[in-house]
Order: sequence, then structure tokens, then C-alpha cells
Amino acid sequence: MVKVGIVGGTGYTGVELLRLLARHPQASLQTITSRAEAGIPVSTLFPNLRGSVDLAFADPKDAPLAQCDVVFFATPNGVCMHQARELLASGVRVVDLAADFRIKDIPAWETWYGMKHACPELVAEAVYGLPEVNRDAIRTSRLIANPGCYPTAVQLGFLPLLQSAVVDTDSLIADAKSGVSGAGRKAEVHTLFSEASDNFKAYGVPGHRHLPEISQGLSAMAGKNLALTFVPHLTPMIRGIHATLYARLNKAVDLQSLYEQRYASEPFVDVQPAGSHPDTRSVRGANTCRIAVHQPQGRDVVVVLSVIDNLVKGAAGQAVQNMNIMFDLPEATGLESLALLP
Amino acid sequence: MVKVGIVGGTGYTGVELLRLLARHPQASLQTITSRAEAGIPVSTLFPNLRGSVDLAFADPKDAPLAQCDVVFFATPNGVCMHQARELLASGVRVVDLAADFRIKDIPAWETWYGMKHACPELVAEAVYGLPEVNRDAIRTSRLIANPGCYPTAVQLGFLPLLQSAVVDTDSLIADAKSGVSGAGRKAEVHTLFSEASDNFKAYGVPGHRHLPEISQGLSAMAGKNLALTFVPHLTPMIRGIHATLYARLNKAVDLQSLYEQRYASEPFVDVQPAGSHPDTRSVRGANTCRIAVHQPQGRDVVVVLSVIDNLVKGAAGQAVQNMNIMFDLPEATGLESLALLP
Amino acid sequence: MVKVGIVGGTGYTGVELLRLLARHPQASLQTITSRAEAGIPVSTLFPNLRGSVDLAFADPKDAPLAQCDVVFFATPNGVCMHQARELLASGVRVVDLAADFRIKDIPAWETWYGMKHACPELVAEAVYGLPEVNRDAIRTSRLIANPGCYPTAVQLGFLPLLQSAVVDTDSLIADAKSGVSGAGRKAEVHTLFSEASDNFKAYGVPGHRHLPEISQGLSAMAGKNLALTFVPHLTPMIRGIHATLYARLNKAVDLQSLYEQRYASEPFVDVQPAGSHPDTRSVRGANTCRIAVHQPQGRDVVVVLSVIDNLVKGAAGQAVQNMNIMFDLPEATGLESLALLP
Amino acid sequence: MVKVGIVGGTGYTGVELLRLLARHPQASLQTITSRAEAGIPVSTLFPNLRGSVDLAFADPKDAPLAQCDVVFFATPNGVCMHQARELLASGVRVVDLAADFRIKDIPAWETWYGMKHACPELVAEAVYGLPEVNRDAIRTSRLIANPGCYPTAVQLGFLPLLQSAVVDTDSLIADAKSGVSGAGRKAEVHTLFSEASDNFKAYGVPGHRHLPEISQGLSAMAGKNLALTFVPHLTPMIRGIHATLYARLNKAVDLQSLYEQRYASEPFVDVQPAGSHPDTRSVRGANTCRIAVHQPQGRDVVVVLSVIDNLVKGAAGQAVQNMNIMFDLPEATGLESLALLP
Repeated sequence: MVKVGIVGGTGYTGVELLRLLARHPQASLQTITSRAEAGIPVSTLFPNLRGSVDLAFADPKDAPLAQCDVVFFATPNGVCMHQARELLASGVRVVDLAADFRIKDIPAWETWYGMKHACPELVAEAVYGLPEVNRDAIRTSRLIANPGCYPTAVQLGFLPLLQSAVVDTDSLIADAKSGVSGAGRKAEVHTLFSEASDNFKAYGVPGHRHLPEISQGLSAMAGKNLALTFVPHLTPMIRGIHATLYARLNKAVDLQSLYEQRYASEPFVDVQPAGSHPDTRSVRGANTCRIAVHQPQGRDVVVVLSVIDNLVKGAAGQAVQNMNIMFDLPEATGLESLALLP
Repeated sequence: MVKVGIVGGTGYTGVELLRLLARHPQASLQTITSRAEAGIPVSTLFPNLRGSVDLAFADPKDAPLAQCDVVFFATPNGVCMHQARELLASGVRVVDLAADFRIKDIPAWETWYGMKHACPELVAEAVYGLPEVNRDAIRTSRLIANPGCYPTAVQLGFLPLLQSAVVDTDSLIADAKSGVSGAGRKAEVHTLFSEASDNFKAYGVPGHRHLPEISQGLSAMAGKNLALTFVPHLTPMIRGIHATLYARLNKAVDLQSLYEQRYASEPFVDVQPAGSHPDTRSVRGANTCRIAVHQPQGRDVVVVLSVIDNLVKGAAGQAVQNMNIMFDLPEATGLESLALLP
Repeated sequence: MVKVGIVGGTGYTGVELLRLLARHPQASLQTITSRAEAGIPVSTLFPNLRGSVDLAFADPKDAPLAQCDVVFFATPNGVCMHQARELLASGVRVVDLAADFRIKDIPAWETWYGMKHACPELVAEAVYGLPEVNRDAIRTSRLIANPGCYPTAVQLGFLPLLQSAVVDTDSLIADAKSGVSGAGRKAEVHTLFSEASDNFKAYGVPGHRHLPEISQGLSAMAGKNLALTFVPHLTPMIRGIHATLYARLNKAVDLQSLYEQRYASEPFVDVQPAGSHPDTRSVRGANTCRIAVHQPQGRDVVVVLSVIDNLVKGAAGQAVQNMNIMFDLPEATGLESLALLP
Repeated sequence: MVKVGIVGGTGYTGVELLRLLARHPQASLQTITSRAEAGIPVSTLFPNLRGSVDLAFADPKDAPLAQCDVVFFATPNGVCMHQARELLASGVRVVDLAADFRIKDIPAWETWYGMKHACPELVAEAVYGLPEVNRDAIRTSRLIANPGCYPTAVQLGFLPLLQSAVVDTDSLIADAKSGVSGAGRKAEVHTLFSEASDNFKAYGVPGHRHLPEISQGLSAMAGKNLALTFVPHLTPMIRGIHATLYARLNKAVDLQSLYEQRYASEPFVDVQPAGSHPDTRSVRGANTCRIAVHQPQGRDVVVVLSVIDNLVKGAAGQAVQNMNIMFDLPEATGLESLALLP
């Protein structure tokens, strides 16, 4: 059994980790911390866990994190970087679901996230936890930077095109749509039901924090720096990301085969039949990324449709997948539940 | 392994049975029929099942139903009554998720359902599959009438009050609200997104088919005929039933204890702490019924709040629970997934 | 032209007042205040008003409220009672959309609202602004307590039954469902999209502030004190209240005629045909209350369905209706827009 | 008063025409036809019209269409082309809200719409009713092809770029998202609430009927044939289109000024402040198109955000705007209502 701790479990990635770990046959949840809710039973905040998670939120200073095999940080950006050094020194492995260790370019990180990095010496060591790209490195890593939700959907969508060098790297566009849970469980006006329901809008067009993360990943795939146009949108659903990706082909290629072969052995990437359109609900609650690839009217533009559940493959599920890899468990352990449809 | 067949798997109770049975460790799905979709892979209609359910829909006349241990009917009303006799004769046990065997009063059934009953001789034998009331009879039954969604939420809510005879039986009111999936996957104008979204309405106030089913169940609990006012409403969510129940107390009673004791050993009924208000999402995708009981301002009116997922505890989950009981499996087998929140 | 001021225009009743008044042919908007947003153009917060409302939010201390003919308070509870005295002294008429002057029993008000009343001497003078009950008093009043949203729907639904004394007054139940905008534009977790969407729950069952307001109104209609069971629910839609009302008949009566006659000359109450079920979207954006009355199975229980838009007939629209009455304008002036459907 | 007839008023563009025309001070609704609903009061289907529209649906063969000044076709594709010739011969002007007269290339139309054109001789005469492009021609036309919803949002978004020739015409991408009402009021599975809610998907990526309509319009603006990549998506809201448009700049230009100047005198196009993101609800129920233009990171890609209400500026509202132009009424007559927010 893997002994697991969670720091900061009152947000949506926290409750989703709890939902998955409570049924994970090889994980034993030791503690979950929250300064604000210390002492409150977890199931008071999240009644879906009643009867299955008996823990109360622990005060961070009292929580036995150092006795865990792995600690997940389901915290805002800027928390993990203050605690990772000490936990690693205690032999605990760390998975940060926030952004502290995602960007290798520390000045760029500090610009986009508006703070000084507290632990720059670990940034190079941290492994970006996208198993489809970095599985071997994840296995032996002690510090995982769990990818963002948009970055997961966009990178998995572009990966076969870039690794096979069949598209212009200066023409990439990612038009991405997210459910509202991606904004977290903070009380804010713009994510109120009466604001976000029956409504659709773009945001962050001048620049979004996930842009440098995606660009870094895509550039690595392409083997050179590339420029991406990234436009996120808020769509009135709870869960789900739909990335619609555009690129200009620079050679003839059987796109369907390209994708099917690249992902043939991936347990959590499902290439759809030619001509199809995956919908976000087909992955609601599941750790799957479903991808379809199109070449409209046979022209030189490829359109990729990539869907994930932002809280699962885009956050907590991918974190558990990384844990499974790190502890030599079958990769799908605890992640077998099927998507809820309808 | 229990060999399972499903008749009529293209509706929402069908896909929900598939979602649950595909992960049930003691069930082996043999066949699923659909006249209209014969030959089509199940996962084409329901992409959440891709990679987990490899069956195609079978033509009903070719399906090896007689080789199954149990057959679920996820069909419209009036189908099971034509096939139950023959299946039972083959030694197959039958669970009807529709209404054919729910009402013991056959003329009443024929009036409410607008057709002649094709198999009246089996009505008396059929066991009403509400485990919290009929667990022992379910265990040995070969024909289960799986309860309706409203009837499950309403009966579980009123049960402790009626069994303990603490309320007037002529004052019962059930004001119930259902998600739209309760209306099924038929193409109809009134359940279109543009009609049902951002909208709320009552329907069937003059009379609804679930009224005689509920009245029969409540009368049995009370030991006498009683009259119920039942008002269903359509609410803009996919899954979930919230029943708000009203009765007049005729004696002083500790309501919280009454409910906690009655349901102490029930695996799928969760009595909430005093003063609380369960929400439907706390059971989304789970087989749980959560109940809270209130006595506003200490007056003589008791208010019960009872929530279920209409497709799980109100249909497919309860059917699997019944199967587990019938085949002496631990009652929660295959039903352990936690509700998806948010 | 009626010169109009608005205090506290950053909430949903504020923007709804602006939407209506911007197109009101006899109203001239002079000022709208907000301490927090002073100096910001109204249309920056509410882009639906771009090009139609050119005002910026004014600091309350600078706003020319005393030069207005009427001032609407679209503020939290407890604001109007501090400013009403001075405005009235300046000859300005006041319409409070909050609760400060709704309850005649001042100690009861102080208990339910948790504060000391700052202006008790005006409570008796204030007219409860439900035109269908108090039209004549409204006409000459200088201080209107605009009714709450639930109270409007519930009182209009019960009114014909109570005025004609055909129901037991100790059996009244109001099971009411509200869209989320009823909770206002405050940033709170429980009204986030990811919390309130695809979900349904009751709240405030032990007691809700609208209970004493409704009870006061119904008691006046019945000519005696009565007890009401009131259960509000949150339903995942933006606008709309649906009140489902139950009472026990104590004499035979033609309910349909009773309702049609009572409301025959009311411009904003529409009695539906017998057997029908009004939906909330049929009043979305309109100042109409639609009511249907049922007697299920001919038993002695009457069921009334009453729907309004909580922001229009339940708040801003009714406030404008009151203004029209106060200033001898045709009552429907500026309130002619039809509901948006779908 | 303009005498108006409507053919086929049971869909969403029909009810929206009725909502607008019922309050239009210069229009007099003479008749509305529906074969299926002949004899049924309009307000039975659309209760928002109760008390404001007293007509019943007329059988098409009895309706006094020839006595109207203008007839709107709110019908499926392929209906207007059979009746336009005769109506025009009677001196009636015709506005087709369907696609019969939108595409000048008749073989292309026949391919995309899968039928033989019944009235090819009128195609050249028909004026494409996008006032921002064709206002003068509309004024004198007797046959208007009212634009589609996607085409309106996309063309208004690209117009300033193409007319000023500042972008590559082989790089245009339109990623468009529509509310579900765009699919109409037909009973179909994929637009059921339980299918379309809490879900997001692309559709028609291989080809959509609006593609040739948009390409024709954009090519005319650019003065040469161009290729467009058009990807429509279904988003879980009732009304609204959000088009996110991408193009590559080929010269330096002040984009904000370009848009503001182009639309300075347009009553229904509102260019947003620099840096902003219009949301669809800001036009809900209104005839406005709101547009923002961005140049992310100062690179050579321009991103345009264009929102409309698909049933108003994308259908019925634009039809009324065209009628106003045709009959020399002030262009905004009957279209002054503000968007409903929230």
C-alpha cells in the first residue's frame, strides 16, 4: 500500500483526488490538510464522500506528511515550492498539481505567475508528468510537476503532428474551451451560476499562464521553438475541456494512421474513428483523452479535436496515473471507472 | 460469474446498466439487444463505453437470452410482460426496469398504462425490488419489478414515518423534482435542451403513472389504504430526484433517531445529520439515497428531503443491487463508485 | 418625466431596474450609486447596457438623490432604513427593494434580520407594494416596501383561496423553487456554477426570512393568523420562481372560476387554462405572474402553480409597476416586453 | 403600418419573429401559418405570447398572404423557393429566413442542400440581407435572403480585415460555438437536454452548409476567392453564437481603430474597448453584434471575437431590421429591447 498525503484538499482537484484515492486498492490515505477547515470532517464539505472518507482536515503543521510515501499538492500556485525541499529530504515523493515546477525557464515562470520562485534548484530536477511523453522519467522521479488541464489536452492533440514533423510550426492555433470547474472553488463573481450559465466567452486572449507551459512542451516535441496562438474560453458546463487545434500540413500524411499508431499502446488516449467528433461527456469522470483528427475538404489544414475531463486527466486522475507509474503499479489502478453518460 | 443479458439497451437505463456491469467483478455481460440498432457496436452509441464494452447490439431474435442467469429489461413499458414467461420457463431470472409488474391491481395497471396486461398470472409472483423493504423476498425471487425512480425516493423517505405510525395517513404530500434524463432518450420536443434548460415546471398534476405505484407501497407500509398528493416537476439537470415530503405528525417522536435507527444497517440509505439539506449531486452516479428530516419551527409538520440519482438508485443501480441479492453476492458489489462532485 | 435615482445598482435587481428604466418612456434616470464602483461606467459592469445607459456609478455622498422624484433602493437589507427618513423629508418618494419595511412586527423583523431597526417610526406608514392587494394605498404612498420574490409568487397563488375562505388555514404548504439569481451577485461558494449547476437542493427548511413576510400577508388575506410550512429550493436556472402550493379545501368551489374572476382585471396576473402547467420561462424577463389551479383526482387538496421571474415581478419589474401607480402612469408603462422563449 | 405574414411559425425563428413583431409599433401581424398546428392558438404553443398575440395558426392554403406587404418564411430550407414567385407576382415582398436564396452558385447550393432548386431564376435577384454590407440593395429589394446565424457572426467579424486587405486570405479560420436553439425546435436525440447539457462538442468538421455561404460573403469582401476553415461547435446554452476568428496579418495596422471606424455608424454592431472579451449573454435577446479584436503578444495573428444572439441578429431580429430598411422605417424600430442579463 502506498501511503498518501494531500496538502490543500478543499478545492476541486482535492475532492477529485479523494474520490479516486478512496477507491484505489493500493493507496492508503493518511492525511489531508487545510488551514481554513482544520478539524472539519472532509465529508461535511464534500458529502459525496460520506461513509467512504472518514478523515477530518488536518492543520498543516500537525499533519504526518513526512510519514507518507507520496504527497499531492492540490494547492494554489506557490505553495508546493515552499514545502517540497523538506519533504523530499524526508524521502517523500511529491506530486504538485499546481504550476510551481512546470516551467523550466524560471524568469518566465516568475513573470507569468507574479512571484519569486522559492525553490529554483528543484525546477530542473522536476519531471513534467505527462506520461505519454515522459513515462520513463516519471517512474524514477521524486518530484512531479503535474500538467495543467489545457496543456494536457493541447499537447496530446498536437503530439503526433509535431513528433512526425508534418506541420508548419509557426501556424499552430489552439482554440480551447473549458468547463467552469477549471476556475476552481474560489468564490468569485465571474464564475457564479448566474454569470457563467447560459453564456459563452473567451478570456485571457492577450495572454494566459498555460501558454508558456504549452509552448515549452510543444517546442520540445518539435525540437525547436515555436509560436502558438492560444485562446481559452469558458463554457457553461462543470467539467471538460475541448481543444480544437489547427495547423498547416507541409506534407501528405495519413493522419488517422499517424494518430492511431502513436497512441496504440497508451491506456488513456483513445483515437476516435475517422470522421468523428468526441464530446466532453464521453470522458466525464474518466481519465481518458479522446482525440479525432480531420482534414476538412482535403485542404492543407489539419483540425484536431481533443477532449479530457479537466479534473481527471487534466488534474487528479493524471496525478494518480503518475503515482501508479512512480510506485510500479499497473498504470490504470484505481482509474477504471467509466465516464458518466448522460 | 453471473451471466447477464440486457433487452433494449439503447436508452439511459440501458447505458447505465452497461456502465455498472462493465466494471462488476462478478457479472459477465453476454448480450444486449436492440431491434433498431442491431449490428451497431454499443460504443458507437455510447462512446463512454469505448474499450470497455465490445458487444454490438444483437437482434432480439438472435440473442442468447435463454443462456443467461439473469436478464434485465431496460425497455419501454409493455415489453417484458411478453417475454418474461418464456425466459422464466428456461430458468432465467428476470429484472424488469419498466413498470409491467409493479402494480398488483391489474385493472388499475391497465388503466394507468393504457394497455391490456399480457401476463397477469405473473403479477402476483413478481417481487417489488425495493431492497430496504423486500430484501428477503428478492433473494429467492425469479421475477423482480424494479421500482420507478420517483417511487424509490418517495417510499424511502416516508418509510420510517409510516412503519412507526407517527403521521396522519390522509395528509401525505410528495412534491418531487426530477432531472430530465428521467424522461428517457426519446426524441421529444419538451425535453429538448432549448425547452428544458433554464426552466422549471410541474407536470402531470392531475395524475401520474407513479402515483398508484407509490400509493401501493406506502399503503403496505402503513397497513391501510392512504391517499397521496403527488406533484412531479421537471428541473434543468441531467440526473437526480429530489423528493420533498410533507406529513402531519400525530405524536411526539425523535425524528432524527427514528430515521437513523431504521436505516442503520442499510448500505445504500444515508441519513444526513440533523438540520442538513442533501443535494442531488451528492449522489450523482452513486447508488445512494440520502435523507434528511426536519420539523420546521417545532410545529406538527414533518418535512423529509430524499435524494437519489434517478438512473442509479432509481433504476440501473437498484437493478444491480437486486441482482447482487438474488445471486448471494455482497450487496454493494460493483456499486462502490463514489458520486461525481462537482 | 419621473426623475429616478437608484441606490446600490451593482446587483441583479440593480441591473434589472436599469434595463427596464432605460426603455421606460416616462422615466428619466438621474443617478445610480455604488460606493465600491464609484466612477466606473455602468456599462462596464453590465455590457448589455452599452449604448443605452451612459451613467457612471456615483459615490453615494455626491449623488443628487434629493432632486429625484423617486429613489429605488436596490441594496442589501438594512440600508434603506438609514436613508429613507431624510429622503422623504426632501419630498422624495422611496421604493425599497430590500426588506427593511416589509414586516410590521418590528421585534420579529429584528430577530429574522439580525439587526436593530434604524427607523421604526416609518414601518407603520410603509405600504407593502403588492399592487394586486394594495393598489390604492400604493398610489398615495411615499414609502413602498417592495415585496420579496418568494412572497410575491406565494401570496398571489394563495390570494383567491384565502379571500374566499375555502381552505383550512392550518394546512398551507408552499414548496417553492428559485433560480440562482435570487441569491444575488455576491461571490459565494454555494452559488458558483460548479456548485449550483446540474444540482437541486432545499435550503432554509428550519426557517427562512421570507416566512414571516409571507405569513403576514396571508394572515391579512385570511383575516386571522395562520401557520405556513415554507420550503425553498435552489434550482439550476438563472431566473424564475415556481411556487407549488398546497391547501385543504373545506367547501366545494369552482376553482378555475374563482381564480379567473379574482384576477380578471389584473394586468400582470395571468390565470392559465384549466389543466395546464405554467413554466418559468413563459415569464422570463416579463412582469407577469402565471397561475394554474388543480384539484388532483377530485380530492380535497388544491394544488396551485404560480410562476414569476424573480428579478421582474419578484423585484425590479414590480418596483417599476409600483412607480407607475404612484405617479399615475398607465400601470404597464415600460413593462410591455414579452418573455424570452426559448 | 406594414402588414406582415409569417409562413411556418412553429419553430424558434417563428416565435422570435412573433415576440418582436407583437411589440413593433409599425407592423401589423396579419397571419401566421402552420400546416401541422392549423387552428391552434399561437399562445398555446408559446405561452410567452399569451395576451399579446391572439392569432391562431392558419392553414397555409387559407392564409391571406397575398394581402400582406411582406411575408417572412420561418420555414425549413426548400419551402420559400416554391412560394416566392407567386407572392412576388402579387406585389408582396419576401424575406426568407432559410437558405433558399443565399447561395448564388446554384449547383453548389443543390449539392450542399441536397435538393433541386425550384426557383433558380430568382436567385440572382435576391439580396443577401446583411445590412452592414448591402443596406442600399436591401432598401429596394423585393426578395431578401436573410443570412444564417454563423454567417452573420463570422462575416461581421472578418469584414473590416478583408475590406482593408490587411490579412492573408488563405489563412482564415472561424472557430464558432452555437447555443442549442440554432438546431431548431425539431425533436432529435442529439439536442435533448440530457445529451446537450453539461457537454461540448464540435460537429460538421468535414463540411457544414454555412461554409459556402460564409465563403461567398468573405470572397466578395476580399474581392477574390478565398478558402476558409470553419469548425462549428455545440455549447450548452440556449441562445448565442460566439465566433473566434483567426487570420494572419500581412501589414501593420491599428486594429482597434480599423474596427471602430468601420462600424462607427452601424446601429447594431458594437466594437468593444481594446482588450475586452464580449460574452454571449450581453446580446441575449438583443439585435446587437459585439466584436472585440486582439493581437496576442503583438505577433502577426489577429484574433476577433464576435458574438450575436443566433435567434435575433442571427435570424428574426435581422429579418425585422431588413423589413425596417425595406419600408423606410427607422432601422431600430421594434428592436430597442436590451439584452437580458443575467
